[in-house]
Amino acid sequence: MYKEQDFDVIVIGAGHAGCEAALASARLGLETCIFTINIDTIAQLSCNPAIGGLAKGHLVREIDALGGEMAKVTDRSGIQFRMLNLSKGPAVWSLRAQADRVLYRNNMRQSLERQKNLSIKQAMVENIVVSDNSVKGVITSLGVFYGARAVIVTTGTFLKGLMHIGLDSFQAGRAGEFPSIGLSDSLKSLGLKMGRLKTGTPPRLDAKSIDFSKTTVQYGDDPPLPFSYSTQKITNPQLPCYITYTNKKTHEIILKSLHRSPLYSGKIKGIGPRYCPSIEDKVIRFAEKERHQVFLEPEGIETTEYYANGISTSLPYDVQIEIVRSIEGLENAEIMRPAYAIEYDFVYPIQLRHTLEVKNIDGLYLAGQINGTSGYEEAAAQGLVAGINASLKLKGKEPLILGRDEAYIGVLIDDLVTKGTTEPYRMFTSRAEYRLLLRHDNADFRLMDKGYGIGLVSEAVYERFREKKRLMDREIERLKKVRVKPSHEINNALLSLGTSAISEDTSLDKILKRPEIRYDFIKKFSSPPEPLTSEIEGIVEINVKYEGYIQKQMEMAEKLKKLEYKKIPADFNYKGIAGLSHEIIEKLSEVRPETIGQASRIPGITPTAISIILISVERYWKEKGF
Amino acid sequence: MYKEQDFDVIVIGAGHAGCEAALASARLGLETCIFTINIDTIAQLSCNPAIGGLAKGHLVREIDALGGEMAKVTDRSGIQFRMLNLSKGPAVWSLRAQADRVLYRNNMRQSLERQKNLSIKQAMVENIVVSDNSVKGVITSLGVFYGARAVIVTTGTFLKGLMHIGLDSFQAGRAGEFPSIGLSDSLKSLGLKMGRLKTGTPPRLDAKSIDFSKTTVQYGDDPPLPFSYSTQKITNPQLPCYITYTNKKTHEIILKSLHRSPLYSGKIKGIGPRYCPSIEDKVIRFAEKERHQVFLEPEGIETTEYYANGISTSLPYDVQIEIVRSIEGLENAEIMRPAYAIEYDFVYPIQLRHTLEVKNIDGLYLAGQINGTSGYEEAAAQGLVAGINASLKLKGKEPLILGRDEAYIGVLIDDLVTKGTTEPYRMFTSRAEYRLLLRHDNADFRLMDKGYGIGLVSEAVYERFREKKRLMDREIERLKKVRVKPSHEINNALLSLGTSAISEDTSLDKILKRPEIRYDFIKKFSSPPEPLTSEIEGIVEINVKYEGYIQKQMEMAEKLKKLEYKKIPADFNYKGIAGLSHEIIEKLSEVRPETIGQASRIPGITPTAISIILISVERYWKEKGF
Ligand SMILES: Cc1cc2nc3c(=O)[nH]c(=O)nc-3n(C[C@H](O)[C@H](O)[C@H](O)COP(=O)(O)OP(=O)(O)OC[C@H]3O[C@@H](n4cnc5c(N)ncnc54)[C@H](O)[C@@H]3O)c2cc1C
Ligand SMILES: Cc1cc2nc3c(=O)[nH]c(=O)nc-3n(C[C@H](O)[C@H](O)[C@H](O)COP(=O)(O)OP(=O)(O)OC[C@H]3O[C@@H](n4cnc5c(N)ncnc54)[C@H](O)[C@@H]3O)c2cc1C
Repeated sequence: MYKEQDFDVIVIGAGHAGCEAALASARLGLETCIFTINIDTIAQLSCNPAIGGLAKGHLVREIDALGGEMAKVTDRSGIQFRMLNLSKGPAVWSLRAQADRVLYRNNMRQSLERQKNLSIKQAMVENIVVSDNSVKGVITSLGVFYGARAVIVTTGTFLKGLMHIGLDSFQAGRAGEFPSIGLSDSLKSLGLKMGRLKTGTPPRLDAKSIDFSKTTVQYGDDPPLPFSYSTQKITNPQLPCYITYTNKKTHEIILKSLHRSPLYSGKIKGIGPRYCPSIEDKVIRFAEKERHQVFLEPEGIETTEYYANGISTSLPYDVQIEIVRSIEGLENAEIMRPAYAIEYDFVYPIQLRHTLEVKNIDGLYLAGQINGTSGYEEAAAQGLVAGINASLKLKGKEPLILGRDEAYIGVLIDDLVTKGTTEPYRMFTSRAEYRLLLRHDNADFRLMDKGYGIGLVSEAVYERFREKKRLMDREIERLKKVRVKPSHEINNALLSLGTSAISEDTSLDKILKRPEIRYDFIKKFSSPPEPLTSEIEGIVEINVKYEGYIQKQMEMAEKLKKLEYKKIPADFNYKGIAGLSHEIIEKLSEVRPETIGQASRIPGITPTAISIILISVERYWKEKGF
Repeated sequence: MYKEQDFDVIVIGAGHAGCEAALASARLGLETCIFTINIDTIAQLSCNPAIGGLAKGHLVREIDALGGEMAKVTDRSGIQFRMLNLSKGPAVWSLRAQADRVLYRNNMRQSLERQKNLSIKQAMVENIVVSDNSVKGVITSLGVFYGARAVIVTTGTFLKGLMHIGLDSFQAGRAGEFPSIGLSDSLKSLGLKMGRLKTGTPPRLDAKSIDFSKTTVQYGDDPPLPFSYSTQKITNPQLPCYITYTNKKTHEIILKSLHRSPLYSGKIKGIGPRYCPSIEDKVIRFAEKERHQVFLEPEGIETTEYYANGISTSLPYDVQIEIVRSIEGLENAEIMRPAYAIEYDFVYPIQLRHTLEVKNIDGLYLAGQINGTSGYEEAAAQGLVAGINASLKLKGKEPLILGRDEAYIGVLIDDLVTKGTTEPYRMFTSRAEYRLLLRHDNADFRLMDKGYGIGLVSEAVYERFREKKRLMDREIERLKKVRVKPSHEINNALLSLGTSAISEDTSLDKILKRPEIRYDFIKKFSSPPEPLTSEIEGIVEINVKYEGYIQKQMEMAEKLKKLEYKKIPADFNYKGIAGLSHEIIEKLSEVRPETIGQASRIPGITPTAISIILISVERYWKEKGF
């Protein structure tokens, strides 16, 4: 076999996970090579042309705070930015951007191409070489071997990919792209347990054939707020989206065609995403709903192609046309690319550590859709963590493991490796226990120290963050110190906002804590020495207003942490422990939790079982002299 | 079977032929649909990122004069423009541009998307439906039928495409794209005789790994001249190319690896392009040459990818690395995408009329690489002609058939349908009999009347052309009228340029005819009433200087035309004619030439045979009363 070269880190796949993994590892100084089946589809947005959204926006911010790339590329490719949930509490605010699909690809490709220590190779990897339980490299379909000290697999929907349109099916990794067959077998032969999932995408329509006057226009925020802490300004032209709805007729068409659905006829065996259902799923599961929203999202600045968000389907093409044309504004719509579903192999993620390394194969990491998740942001987050951890390990440093109280990324990975998943997993704010701590606005406060410490956040960006923190701290302190005297003026103002008057000297922060009061109000009565940016004003407001709640969540997290981080030895033998049921022993032996906290989150593990294990573990450590 | 829709014209394939065909037909008011396997690869430059060059530049100009799109898109995507052969006569001047591969795709896609009457569909066409020898429509792999009154097939290298890298082979239409299997069988079942060809492409390298200081830089023209008669200015940033060479070591590597070449080991059955040989072909065929040029061409403005023009190969990947790294400046070069060869099915083009319609299938047209040609420009030219002719036929108008004395496009198509080809055909200036007529500078003078008449050239562009013609005519007339008197001044100037003095009043045009004299010289002594653009000055100069030769070629063409255009009846029976050999009768019955001129160019048809046929044909027409 011909060997071209040795690398420190090899990344298989240049999707959202792969790009982050490769950039992180190259930036941390490791000789890195990223393999992709096609260089032209680097960072392809396979499904909707949008990044962020509820909970996913948090992930993007966290990726940025840690020094990842997704937020920056989104800012350079975004054609609409909207902060969602502004009417609700700040814990669930979340940014979402429409992206120009071509620009996104090109911008990410540029980042990769310009990165030192990073080689890009168009090749199909067929085999991962492991010996002595340790990864040695990969072999491509041309029979070329590349050595590596760590391999990160990020193959998305490509492993034994099978596309479905109605009852027709085709082998493909994604529309128009070859599937990856050999690599799936290689992973299986390494002993990894694999399953099959399914996801789908809606048809793309031609704007020329849409009657937008029958839809509702939705503009983005003006000015658009960026995702990245390092972006100063969004410069792309901004475009609106359009909203229309399915109706009774649409639903009838779907119901009468179900026998031609690969899903309902049993042809598709893989499990689909519960939270991102196809239109046929929605019509059946929410039979009482008379209509479902359809977002018409532009695919880019220059193109006439529109993405019909909301009608993902695997029904046959003729039914797709009927569905589309039953919708207001789409009566004459032309489909440019059909909707389809895709089935693919994934690896049960409980076989991974929190570092995303495979438990019993040294140096083999998995990230992205291959771990059973769905979504660009989930993929990117894992890619970044895998890239960082592979690098830290090779440099002999401590791994990066984010707590559930530190980041949505922490929640995501802990869920995957602890609870596992048997259906496509996506992030929700409801998955996090400490939502008030894990806010969209404070990802930098939570994570930038780490990103900087690891070496992925630049001096300039970190300095800007420190300055922001300084200004925030100073202002909060000022609000606590400065007291206002009761006066006609302030009391009238307070009363007019529906809150009570003050009768004695009151500190500004106390007033700001009232639900009816915004920072703007405070500023009018007492402005800071230097004016603050609206970003800092917002953070100050949230921190003051929710101080009590935040404090409480932090204390709770702190209390649990002691247990949470109590380490369970890697070779811990559950079989010997009296009082554990056979089933629980089996589960624990399969997941092999690294901490008591992780053990407690394994589905089916009872609190009693946890107490029993805790006692055994403490005895173990005592015997070892800890 | 589900039928989605009827169109007037369906184009299968959105490569260079398909895009021109579809735009022409839609612009001529016909409801048109273009099918492509992948919308993202519309107008993909499959091989080198360059348009034009010797003879090919002529084609691009002609496409533009007829109202095609290639020149405009090249102007919008070009990152280097060079007029080649300026040291030789104007008949062989030719423009060549480097194009940004991504921009080229996007710009052409924009042109298609914004075109009225044009639908774009991502689908794999599997079948062409013909009944009563007349095309009825197509069927896709999803079993959907689309009706059409004309179908233009432009499937490039995709029909049963088979990629080769060393002795490994993969079914693909092009790297990373699915091949088209069913459609090839469908064409065969329609009775078309098909063969197999082969072409290849060199590796792509990463600029980061190239030592450009060891190469020779080559800049484009400044200012860059555009291809299109409607482009005012090239606005993209302009980039240089770099030149390096193979050497003895390179050639040794190749020779010692030939047993691993799919070509030399007999694995590839298709015939390769003689004029665009692989590096292994060059090393063998030109064994005496010590080195071959390698152009390093940027793939785009933003990317670090470089195209290594000159080392196309199908040798194995490890040999490719050896070859690359043996070259100066490329000692550490990294291959981003490997070189490969591809074999594909083509249709013997003598089965076509000059309109590119299949002889015995009404409404079925073939254009581009499927007809045995190679090259973007050859493909685009055919696509345009097929699109125009399908439209003219549906509108009941006379077809567009360009003479060999009118256009390189005329030469190209006449060669294909008359001589046929058994190897990839590409255009050369040497293929044209009337090179002084078919110049790069005068494509608009030759063809814009036709383009305008058909309806593809806009009023504004045509008006600009007429103004240019008016100014040119006026200036030529002036040069003929204005006479200069012998004077010290002019005679000294003439002598200093190495030409003789004048001794009597001499017209300016006589002086300009002297080889040593350029228009600039004339202008100094007698400038036109209004200053002319340098473009018009150039045309004036060529027309005056070469007037005699041009006149002679025109007369020759005129003389031959009488015979050339003498029509042979479609049902003409060669068998009854005494004096024709069995072989010649067979050839004539196969090609079924439409004119005596075409008959005379069929390989193996002797002048004697032509005289015999001419007599019979004239008798035939007389009997019919013409
Ligand atoms: C049809 C479809 C519908 C989807 N619908 C949704 C949805 O509704 N909601 C949602 O959140 N997400 C959806 N997604 C998922 C979303 O696209 C993915 O979650 C995300 O792209 C995953 O990123 P990734 O990096 O893991 O993999 P991908 O983005 O899939 O990238 C995989 C990469 O691996 C490369 N690769 C694969 N095999 C090999 C190999 N053997 N050798 C070299 N390279 C290889 C590929 O070339 C590619 O670059 C959908 C995806 C598809 C295809
Ligand atoms: C590896 C390689 C090397 C080459 N080397 C050279 C060279 O050295 N010199 C040179 O001059 N030229 C070379 N070329 C050729 C050049 O790329 C072509 O001549 C030119 O692109 C042909 O244009 P086309 O429009 O005929 O087809 P293409 O550009 O190949 O386009 C074909 C189109 O047809 C579509 N299609 C195919 N089948 C179907 C179907 N069943 N249904 C729907 N759509 C379909 C495809 O999606 C594509 O859009 C090379 C090409 C390749 C691939």
